Amino acid sequence: MEKFNSSITYDRHLWEADVQGSKAYSRGLEKAGLLTKAEMDQILHGLDKVAEEWAQGTFKLNPNDEDIHTANERRLKELIGETAGKLHTGRSRNDQVVTDLRLWMRHSCSTLSALLWELIRTMVDRAEAERDILFPGYTHLQRAQPILWSHWILSHAVALTRDSERLLEVQKRINVLPLGSGAIAGNPLGVDRELLRAELNFGAISLNSMDATSERDFVAEFLFWASLCMTHLSRMAEDLILYGTKEFSFVQLSDAYSTGSSLMPQKKNPDSLELIRSKAGRVFGRCAGLLMTLKGLPSTYNKDLQEDKEAVFEVSDTMSAVLQVATGVISTLQINRENMARALSPDMLATDLAYYLVRKGMPFRQAHEASGKAVFMAETKGVALNQLSLQELQTISPLFSGDVSRVWDYGHSVEQYAALGGTARSSVDWQIGQVRALLRAQQA
Amino acid sequence: MEKFNSSITYDRHLWEADVQGSKAYSRGLEKAGLLTKAEMDQILHGLDKVAEEWAQGTFKLNPNDEDIHTANERRLKELIGETAGKLHTGRSRNDQVVTDLRLWMRHSCSTLSALLWELIRTMVDRAEAERDILFPGYTHLQRAQPILWSHWILSHAVALTRDSERLLEVQKRINVLPLGSGAIAGNPLGVDRELLRAELNFGAISLNSMDATSERDFVAEFLFWASLCMTHLSRMAEDLILYGTKEFSFVQLSDAYSTGSSLMPQKKNPDSLELIRSKAGRVFGRCAGLLMTLKGLPSTYNKDLQEDKEAVFEVSDTMSAVLQVATGVISTLQINRENMARALSPDMLATDLAYYLVRKGMPFRQAHEASGKAVFMAETKGVALNQLSLQELQTISPLFSGDVSRVWDYGHSVEQYAALGGTARSSVDWQIGQVRALLRAQQA
Amino acid sequence: MEKFNSSITYDRHLWEADVQGSKAYSRGLEKAGLLTKAEMDQILHGLDKVAEEWAQGTFKLNPNDEDIHTANERRLKELIGETAGKLHTGRSRNDQVVTDLRLWMRHSCSTLSALLWELIRTMVDRAEAERDILFPGYTHLQRAQPILWSHWILSHAVALTRDSERLLEVQKRINVLPLGSGAIAGNPLGVDRELLRAELNFGAISLNSMDATSERDFVAEFLFWASLCMTHLSRMAEDLILYGTKEFSFVQLSDAYSTGSSLMPQKKNPDSLELIRSKAGRVFGRCAGLLMTLKGLPSTYNKDLQEDKEAVFEVSDTMSAVLQVATGVISTLQINRENMARALSPDMLATDLAYYLVRKGMPFRQAHEASGKAVFMAETKGVALNQLSLQELQTISPLFSGDVSRVWDYGHSVEQYAALGGTARSSVDWQIGQVRALLRAQQA
Amino acid sequence: MEKFNSSITYDRHLWEADVQGSKAYSRGLEKAGLLTKAEMDQILHGLDKVAEEWAQGTFKLNPNDEDIHTANERRLKELIGETAGKLHTGRSRNDQVVTDLRLWMRHSCSTLSALLWELIRTMVDRAEAERDILFPGYTHLQRAQPILWSHWILSHAVALTRDSERLLEVQKRINVLPLGSGAIAGNPLGVDRELLRAELNFGAISLNSMDATSERDFVAEFLFWASLCMTHLSRMAEDLILYGTKEFSFVQLSDAYSTGSSLMPQKKNPDSLELIRSKAGRVFGRCAGLLMTLKGLPSTYNKDLQEDKEAVFEVSDTMSAVLQVATGVISTLQINRENMARALSPDMLATDLAYYLVRKGMPFRQAHEASGKAVFMAETKGVALNQLSLQELQTISPLFSGDVSRVWDYGHSVEQYAALGGTARSSVDWQIGQVRALLRAQQA
Repeated sequence: MEKFNSSITYDRHLWEADVQGSKAYSRGLEKAGLLTKAEMDQILHGLDKVAEEWAQGTFKLNPNDEDIHTANERRLKELIGETAGKLHTGRSRNDQVVTDLRLWMRHSCSTLSALLWELIRTMVDRAEAERDILFPGYTHLQRAQPILWSHWILSHAVALTRDSERLLEVQKRINVLPLGSGAIAGNPLGVDRELLRAELNFGAISLNSMDATSERDFVAEFLFWASLCMTHLSRMAEDLILYGTKEFSFVQLSDAYSTGSSLMPQKKNPDSLELIRSKAGRVFGRCAGLLMTLKGLPSTYNKDLQEDKEAVFEVSDTMSAVLQVATGVISTLQINRENMARALSPDMLATDLAYYLVRKGMPFRQAHEASGKAVFMAETKGVALNQLSLQELQTISPLFSGDVSRVWDYGHSVEQYAALGGTARSSVDWQIGQVRALLRAQQA
Repeated sequence: MEKFNSSITYDRHLWEADVQGSKAYSRGLEKAGLLTKAEMDQILHGLDKVAEEWAQGTFKLNPNDEDIHTANERRLKELIGETAGKLHTGRSRNDQVVTDLRLWMRHSCSTLSALLWELIRTMVDRAEAERDILFPGYTHLQRAQPILWSHWILSHAVALTRDSERLLEVQKRINVLPLGSGAIAGNPLGVDRELLRAELNFGAISLNSMDATSERDFVAEFLFWASLCMTHLSRMAEDLILYGTKEFSFVQLSDAYSTGSSLMPQKKNPDSLELIRSKAGRVFGRCAGLLMTLKGLPSTYNKDLQEDKEAVFEVSDTMSAVLQVATGVISTLQINRENMARALSPDMLATDLAYYLVRKGMPFRQAHEASGKAVFMAETKGVALNQLSLQELQTISPLFSGDVSRVWDYGHSVEQYAALGGTARSSVDWQIGQVRALLRAQQA
Repeated sequence: MEKFNSSITYDRHLWEADVQGSKAYSRGLEKAGLLTKAEMDQILHGLDKVAEEWAQGTFKLNPNDEDIHTANERRLKELIGETAGKLHTGRSRNDQVVTDLRLWMRHSCSTLSALLWELIRTMVDRAEAERDILFPGYTHLQRAQPILWSHWILSHAVALTRDSERLLEVQKRINVLPLGSGAIAGNPLGVDRELLRAELNFGAISLNSMDATSERDFVAEFLFWASLCMTHLSRMAEDLILYGTKEFSFVQLSDAYSTGSSLMPQKKNPDSLELIRSKAGRVFGRCAGLLMTLKGLPSTYNKDLQEDKEAVFEVSDTMSAVLQVATGVISTLQINRENMARALSPDMLATDLAYYLVRKGMPFRQAHEASGKAVFMAETKGVALNQLSLQELQTISPLFSGDVSRVWDYGHSVEQYAALGGTARSSVDWQIGQVRALLRAQQA
Repeated sequence: MEKFNSSITYDRHLWEADVQGSKAYSRGLEKAGLLTKAEMDQILHGLDKVAEEWAQGTFKLNPNDEDIHTANERRLKELIGETAGKLHTGRSRNDQVVTDLRLWMRHSCSTLSALLWELIRTMVDRAEAERDILFPGYTHLQRAQPILWSHWILSHAVALTRDSERLLEVQKRINVLPLGSGAIAGNPLGVDRELLRAELNFGAISLNSMDATSERDFVAEFLFWASLCMTHLSRMAEDLILYGTKEFSFVQLSDAYSTGSSLMPQKKNPDSLELIRSKAGRVFGRCAGLLMTLKGLPSTYNKDLQEDKEAVFEVSDTMSAVLQVATGVISTLQINRENMARALSPDMLATDLAYYLVRKGMPFRQAHEASGKAVFMAETKGVALNQLSLQELQTISPLFSGDVSRVWDYGHSVEQYAALGGTARSSVDWQIGQVRALLRAQQA
C-alpha cells in the first residue's frame, strides 16, 4: 500500500519547482509576520542547499519520503533544524503540489513552444527554398490537381501554427497561482497572495480556494493540446510514409531517420515517421485517462488527482522527442523532383478544362459535365486527356478552340490558383509571409 | 451503399448556413465577373425562396439528394433554371461544407455561450444571496473545514468561467473563412476572398487551401471544450447528488428536477443530476471518436471527415439541454440550513487549533502535532474536541490559554480565511465581484 | 427537463422485446398465484394487440409516455382495463429495461454475426478463387517479400474470425436473465426465475439483484467488440485505399462503391472504404463514452445508465451497414494482375538470397550481411539485384554457384514459405480449410 | 532519434520470454536440419548463461542494444561465437517480439488471475461471515430497500467473476504461437511450428503469417479487460468512500489503507480507495491509446506497434497493485453495525407496504399508489411511515388490517426477497455457493 500511495518515483521531477515555491512562500510568511527575517534567511539558505543537492545528484531519498514535498521538507529540517517546521504554516500539500506542477509545466511548455516553432521555421524555410517544384495534390488519395510541393509543406506548417496559438492560451491558464489556497478553505494567516504571485512571476491568482486546489483544467488542456498537435503530425507522417513508398517515390528519408530489417537486407523502413504517427495514440490515451479520472469526482482535492503528474511528464517527454525528430526528418528529407513531375498526368487538369469552358461562358455545371465527357472519351480511346484533338473536343462543345492547348501546361494550371490561400506561387509567398509574421508576433 | 454514403438525414441542419454561404459566394462570382448582376440577383432571389421553403417546412427532399448542398442546388435549379449551374463555379463541396459547418457552429456557440453565462449568473446570484450560510467543506469526502455555502457555489462557478473563456477562443478559431479554397488547390477565377469574408462576417480567411478543406481542429476543439465543461458539471452534479442523500440532507431538488420510482413509492430520485453526470461520458466519447478518425488520415479531404457533423450536432444539443437543466436545478434547489449547521463538528476546527498555537509562536509542524494529540485525546475520552478542558489542553502545550475558546466558533473560523480566494465573506464578495466583472467583459 | 429525461425517442426500438418480456413475466405471475389464468390470458392477449399496433405502425404515443415501458403499459390498460395494473407486480423498470435491452441485443448480435460470417465467407471464396496471383507484401509500407494475393485476403479474414469468436462470447454474457431482480432487492413474491429464463430462452439467470440491475458489462463488451472489429476493417480499408491509388493500381472499386467529385470530373473516390475507416472512430467513441459514464458510479441503478441504449442502437446500425458495405466492396472489387506482377522487384528476394547461403551452410547473420552487400552492389552498379553476374556474387561469397538463378523466380520464392501460416499455396489452402472449419463450427 | 527508436528501457522486461522463445526456436532449427545437435546444445547452453546473467543482475547492456532481442543475441555471440548467428535463421524480429510478448502476458495474466480470485475469495468469505447484517440498499443514492450487507458485497464479487471469466478468454487468445511467421511471408526452411508450439506450451498456432506478426488483438483485449475490471473496482471504491464518510459512517478503513493530512490533524483520508477509483482512468487511457494507434494502420508490421509493450507493462503493474490493495482494504475493513441498523427507516418499507396490498388482491399499480398516499400522509403529519395508525391506513384502503404491523420488520422484509438472486439469506447462501463453484471450476 505504501508503494501504491507513494509518488516520489515520479514527482521528484518537481524538485526545482518545489524549492522555488517554498522560497516564495517563506517570503510570504515573513511579510505576514509568521517568520522573522532571520528565520526566513535560514529557510531560504537551507532550500538553496536542498536544490544544490538535487542539482548535483547528491540528494538522498529516505524510504519514508512519500513525495517530493515531504522529502524536501525532511531534508530542510535536517539542514536547518526546527525552523523548517514553520515553512508549511498555512500551506497544504493541496496548494503546494498544484503550484509546483504549474511551475514545472510553465517551464516545459516554453520548451515545447520553442521546439514547435523550430519545426515550423524549418518547414517554412524549406517551403521557401523549394517553391518551384510541382507534384500531384491528392484528395481521397486520388490524384486531384497539380500543386506546389511548398503548398503541401505549408498546409502542415499552417496547422502547426494553430497548435502554437493554442499552446499560448494553455500557458496563460497554467500561469495562475494557486498557492495560498490551503487545503480547501484558503489562508487564514494574512499571507499576501499578490506577493506570492509576483515572487513566482505568475500572471494571476486563482479566484477560489476550493477550485484552485482541485481543478486540473490546465492539465487536461495541455494533454488535449498535445493530442491535437499529434493528430497533425500523424497526418504529416502518414503523407510522408506514403510519399516514401516505392510506388510514390517522391521522398526519401535520410538514413538517420530510417532503419533496416533484421530479416530483409534490402529494407529501409520509415521508423521515425511510424513512431510519430503512433504516438498520437499514446498521447491521446493520457488525455482520455485524465478526463475519465476527473469525471464525477466530488469537489475539492481527492487522491485521484495524483494521476495528473505521470501523464504530464510522459506527454511532455513524448512531445519534446516527437517535435525534434519531426524537425530532423523535414530538414534532412530528400525529394525526387523527377518522380514528382512524372506523377502529374493530364487527367488532373480536367477541372481546368471545365474552367476553360466557364471562361467561355458556359455555366459550371455544364462545363463540369463536358469535361467529364472528355475524360470519358480519352479513356475510351485509350489516350491521355491532352491527346484529344480539337475536333474531338468540339464534338463535346463548340466552345473549344485552339487556345485549349494552354490548359495542358501544369505550371500554368498552378499559377491560376492565385486567390489567397491557393497554390499559385504568389499565394505561397503570401502564406510564407503570414506564417513568418505569426512566428515573430508570438515570440514577441 | 447509397444510404451509407448519404448525409442528408443529419446535414439538413445546415440548410440556413448553406443558403447563407451560397448567397455570399454568388456575390463573389459577380464581382469576379463570372455572373452578371442579373444572374446574381436571380440566384439570390432563388436562394431566398429555398430558405423560405426550409423555414416553412415545405422543402421537399428527393431520393437523390445525398446531402444538403446538392438538395439546395437541385431546388435552386428547379426554381430559376440553368443559371443555377453557375453558382458552384470554382467552389467545391470540400470548401462549401466546411464553410457551412463553421457558420452553423458560430451560431450554436453563441447560443451555448449565452446559456453558460446564464448558468454562471444564476450561481453567482445565489452565492450572493446566501452568503451567510456555513456548512462543512470536504476533502477526500471527509469533513475538512467549515466554509461558506457560497464559497462552494463559487468554486463551481469559477470553473465555468474558464469554460466560457475557452469557448471564446474556440469561437475565434471557428470564425475563419475557408470558402475560396476549392477542392484542394484554391480558387482559379479571381474570387475575392476578402469580400466573401466580409459578406459572411468571418474574422479572418484561411491561409492554405489544402489545410482549409481538411482540418477539423475547430470541431475537435469544440468537442473537447464541451468535454471539459461536462467534467465540471459532472463534479457539481456529483456533489449535489451526495448533498441530497438522506445522510447529508443539505439540499433538496425541486420536484421538476427529480422523478419517482416505478416500484418504490417513497423514492424521489435526482435524475436530472444523474443525467448531467452521465452526459460527460457521451460528450467525451464524441471527442475521442473524432480524434481517432483524424489520426493518421492522409492530407486533404477524405470522406472520413464526414464524421464531424453528427458529433457537432449531438454535442451542441446535449450541451444546450445540460446547461438549461443545470440552471433550472440551481435556481430551484432548496437548501436545509439547519442540517448544514448541524453537520459542522468541532474536529473540523483542529486546523484552527493548530493555527492558534502558531499564532502563539509554535512552529506549524509542532502545532499540527499538538492539535493531533488533542484530537486523539478527545476521541479517547469520547468527547468532542471543544469539550476538552483548558487543563487537558495544557497537558499538550502550555501555550493554550483561556482565549482558546474563540477557536470553537465556526463563524469566526471562516472569517479568518480572508486571503484572496479564501472562504471569508470578504473574499467571497471579492470573488463575486471578479466573476461579475468577467461576465461583463466577455459579453462586451 | 421532461425532454431531457425522456427516452421514448430512441427506446421505442425496444417495443418488441418489451412485449416479449412482459408476456413471460405475466406467465411467471400466474404461476406464482398473483394472476389468475384468466387475468394472464387477458394480459397476454392485450400485449399481442400492443405488439400488433407497433408492427403495423398504428401505435400512438402520448406526450406522457416517457419511455417504451410506460407507453406499452399505458396502452395495455386502455385495451384491457385495470388488470393491466397487475403486470408490474414485483417488477421494476430497473430489471425490466435491462431485460428488454438484452433481448434486443441478443437478436441484433445474431444478425451481426451472420453478416460477419457472410463477409468472411466472401473473402475466403475470393481467396480460394484467386490463389494463383502474386503481388508484393509490404511491411512498414515498404516492399518486403512476394506473397499470394490470397494470403493478403486471408490475413484480414483470419482477423475477422477472432471477432466472430469474441462475439459468441459476448452473446453468451448478453444471454443472462436479469428479470426478477426488482429495483434492487430481488423479487419477494415467489416468482420462479427459472420459468422466466425458460420462457425467454435465456442461457442463465443473473446471480445478484443489485448487480443485475446495474451492470452494463454486456454493453461495454459489445461496444468494445465492435471497436476492435472496426479497427480490423479500418486496416483492411486502408490497404485497399492504398492499393487503389494511381501509384499502386492493384485494385479498382466498382462504381457502386466509389463516388465522383463535385469539382473534378476525372475523380473516382473510394468513399465506401473511407467511411469504413472513419467509423472505427465513431464506434470506439461510443465505447469510450460508456466506460467514462460507468466509472466511479455508485452501486445499483442510477439514471446515468440510460446512456447505454443510444450507444447500442447506433453501434448496431453502424456495424450492420459497415459489414454489408465491406462484403459488397470485396465481392465486386476488380484486381489488376499485370500491375501486381509488375510491382514485384528482385530486391524483394534479398531475403531468399540470404536463405540460399544459409542452405549452403552459412550462419544466417553472415548470410544476411552477404545479401545486403549484394543489394548494395546492385544499387551501386545501377542494376537490378538479379542482374548481378555469378562472378560478382562470388566476390561476396564463394558459396554462390550457378543454382543461384533459381532464387530469382517469384513463384518459387512463394512456394518456399510452406510452413503452416506461410504464403505458399499449400499453406494458403490449409488456411482456407481452417477458416471454413471455424465457420461451420461456430454456426453449429 | 536513436533514443526515440530504442525500446530497451522497457522491453528488457521480456528477457526471460526472449530466452525461452529462442531456446524453443533453436530446437526447431535443429529438427529442420539447420543446426546440428552440437550447435543447438551450444546455443541452448549459451542462452541459459544469458538468462542467468539477467536473473543475477549481471547482464550488461551495450549502448548499441536497441532492444532486448539484439541485446540477448549480441551477448550470446560473445559467449559462444559465430554459431550464435544461426539462431535468427528464418526468424524475424516481427515474429520474435510478438512471441515474447505473448509469453510474458501469459505469465502475467496467470498472476493477475490468481490475485483476482484472491480478492473474490476474500469478499465471499466476508459475505459469508457477516450475513446477518442489514443496512440500506440505495438506488440513485437514495435509500431504497433494506438489504443484507452480504448482498452488497456479493454484488461486487459477482461482477468480478465476469472479469475472471473474460480473463480466461483473453488468455486463450494470448496463448497462440506466432513464431514461424517470419517478417511477413512465413518460414521457408521447414521449421515445424507444431514442435515450437509444444515446446513453448502454446494452445494453438497462428493461421496467417501477415496477421500473426501485426495483429495486437490480444493486447487490446487485455487492456479492455483491465479497463472493465477497473470500472467495477471504481464503483466498489466509490461505494466504500461514501460509506466511510462521517454522514454514512457504515465502514471505516484500517489505518494501513488511509492517510492523514499535511494540514488538518483530524483527517483520515481513504487514499487507497481514491487511487483505485482513479486508476480506472489511467488503465482505460492505455486502451484508448492503443486502439487509436491501431486504427487505419496499413497491413502487417509497422513500427507503430511498438506502442504495445509499455501499455501492457504499465497496466499489468497497475492491476497487480490495485487487486492486492483492494483485497487488503476488504479484509481489514471495519463495519459499524449500529450505524447500519440506524440508517434503516420505515419509508424504505413502502414497497413492502404495496406488496402487502397486492397480497390482499389489489393490482400493483393501485397498491403502489396507495402506498404512496401513506408515505405522503406520514410526511404531512410529520411521523414515520410505521407510525400511521391502522385507522389512518384504512382511510387509504380498507384492505389494511392488523397484520400490517408485520410489514415494519426489516428482517422480515429482507427474508421475503427469496427468489434466486434476491437479498434473502437463502438467496445469499445460494450466491455464495454459486461463486465458490465458479472459483473451483475456473481454477480447474
